[in-house]
Amino acid sequence: MTTSTQIRLAAYPVGVPQDSDFETVTVELPPLSDGQVLLRTIYLSLDPYMRGRMSTAKSYAASLELGDVILGGTVCEVLESRSESLAAGDIVLAYSGWQTHAVAEATQLRRLDPAQAPVSTAVGVLGMPGFTAYAGLLELGRPKPGETVVVAAAAGPVGSAVGQIARIKGARAVGIAGGSEKCRILLQTYGFDAAVDHRSPTFVDDLAAATPDGIDVYFENVGGEVTDAVIERLNLYARMPVCGQVAGYNATEPPTGPDQLPRFLRKVLTLSLTVRGFIQSEFVPTHYDAFERDMSDWIRDGQVHYLQDIVDGLHNAPEAFRGLLTGRNVGKLLVRVGADPTSS
Amino acid sequence: MTTSTQIRLAAYPVGVPQDSDFETVTVELPPLSDGQVLLRTIYLSLDPYMRGRMSTAKSYAASLELGDVILGGTVCEVLESRSESLAAGDIVLAYSGWQTHAVAEATQLRRLDPAQAPVSTAVGVLGMPGFTAYAGLLELGRPKPGETVVVAAAAGPVGSAVGQIARIKGARAVGIAGGSEKCRILLQTYGFDAAVDHRSPTFVDDLAAATPDGIDVYFENVGGEVTDAVIERLNLYARMPVCGQVAGYNATEPPTGPDQLPRFLRKVLTLSLTVRGFIQSEFVPTHYDAFERDMSDWIRDGQVHYLQDIVDGLHNAPEAFRGLLTGRNVGKLLVRVGADPTSS
Repeated sequence: MTTSTQIRLAAYPVGVPQDSDFETVTVELPPLSDGQVLLRTIYLSLDPYMRGRMSTAKSYAASLELGDVILGGTVCEVLESRSESLAAGDIVLAYSGWQTHAVAEATQLRRLDPAQAPVSTAVGVLGMPGFTAYAGLLELGRPKPGETVVVAAAAGPVGSAVGQIARIKGARAVGIAGGSEKCRILLQTYGFDAAVDHRSPTFVDDLAAATPDGIDVYFENVGGEVTDAVIERLNLYARMPVCGQVAGYNATEPPTGPDQLPRFLRKVLTLSLTVRGFIQSEFVPTHYDAFERDMSDWIRDGQVHYLQDIVDGLHNAPEAFRGLLTGRNVGKLLVRVGADPTSS
Repeated sequence: MTTSTQIRLAAYPVGVPQDSDFETVTVELPPLSDGQVLLRTIYLSLDPYMRGRMSTAKSYAASLELGDVILGGTVCEVLESRSESLAAGDIVLAYSGWQTHAVAEATQLRRLDPAQAPVSTAVGVLGMPGFTAYAGLLELGRPKPGETVVVAAAAGPVGSAVGQIARIKGARAVGIAGGSEKCRILLQTYGFDAAVDHRSPTFVDDLAAATPDGIDVYFENVGGEVTDAVIERLNLYARMPVCGQVAGYNATEPPTGPDQLPRFLRKVLTLSLTVRGFIQSEFVPTHYDAFERDMSDWIRDGQVHYLQDIVDGLHNAPEAFRGLLTGRNVGKLLVRVGADPTSS
């Protein structure tokens, strides 16, 4: 018998998720059926969208039920297999969530090649966050050479990929991040053309100085005061793909007024803006193959860089997740749940 | 010498345009040069977009300068011509604004055929308002058969065309208007599937009852509380063409809170909405020919109906325009500036 230590949803968080909203249990896993494999979790990906699943609000995806294991992308080692397609020792991309072990259908897993790239990138720059940037920017943002692309949370895995892909396509990339250290990383590690610190008291003026020709694409993943300021810089026919609203994920009531929605819709009208919400899965059938090819090439050529922030131990996932929602980490946030046999 | 009585912008209105924001002057028109014609205004079109031009806010179009004749589409009779393409007695579509006479370049005018349709429709259902509905609904709204299309200001020239075109395309058309008389017209004259009175205390519940399958396309031309209510009914992948925000055109400051923008962007995100501002001129090169053909056919077949609200006398234009912004009229609002020789 194999046991799995799991973190489950004990209560729907109100505001910032508290420790009491999670419960840790250890369960015995059932024996494998034909076609199944036993997984040991190596890396658990922590991503802002998870906050939305811890809510009963209507969304593109069903909410977690109370008692469910918190979901999440994982990189796992196959310990035991009753499938011909996978063998013990294989490393796979899975969606087994916040737990140490799991039983999964082999058909739901993708084998990773540790010789091609570090396996952890399968939940980062070569996985969902990288694909979110790629599909949202290229299909919805459609930057033209010479245009200005702005992205917030720019030091994160989505934002950093947005900026780098924008530059590859010949656009000017302006990143917004919180604090001078992140802004330094935007310029030095990711090669943004300009970086703006949204915590600075001169943020609005700094943004204007960094976007002298206005903004043609705003890749929206933050919301709040950053968005309020960006809107004022948008150009005619600007595009605004919306893939996140992390500034408001812990909000328990609407911010106080004045009501900015009429001002926003007036901008949409007078500037002929296109605002388009999306979740990356919409574009998987049409864009994923091109993404894998392009992104692998770009990483190999040194045109795309990435950073990881690795936290050890599943029990640290709740605290790390809280930090993610407030911008505490730099780079792709991962929990190392167990040893990575492919890492030297 | 011919004189023209003109209404000019005397001051940028703050809030509702006052009589003192306009000034009436009579000027002598210059003699015609080669290629020019002398026009006598028959109909002046009054449209909500004019309020935006009486403002210095950045927009798709330049603001009026103080002292400018207020702009607007017109139907005119040619009194005198120094162009081979037009002759005295011809009726033309012009853009000569709030005045009784004008000198214009013949190349900027389009001759109308009174035998084909009443000439007044050239600034209504067969002109800019009809085309706004056609291009915005079909190119941006893209209703599929069986989907639900909602439009506000539905008794107006744009809204009534949106609803009727939606039905022609097999969609369910739900119109929002102010008052039971307008709602009756939506059902009886325009054939909407349902009509909802936004002045009713039960508006939110009535809207829900009228849209049992949610809303797939919201043709946005109003803003304010109507929009707040519609947003709650939008379906996944709903489309929201934005061609007006008339509820806020006279606003002098943002409405009080709470701030609805975060809630709106959260909807955009979780429902993968497409919100797209537009002005009809963007689509003229690609869609106008098809519009003229389709709309003429639909009117001839009885699939599209229209109503006109005709006010006599140029001096009544300011008061009629104020009424337009508060929903006082039913149907396309026109000022009859001079006699219509084509009307029996």
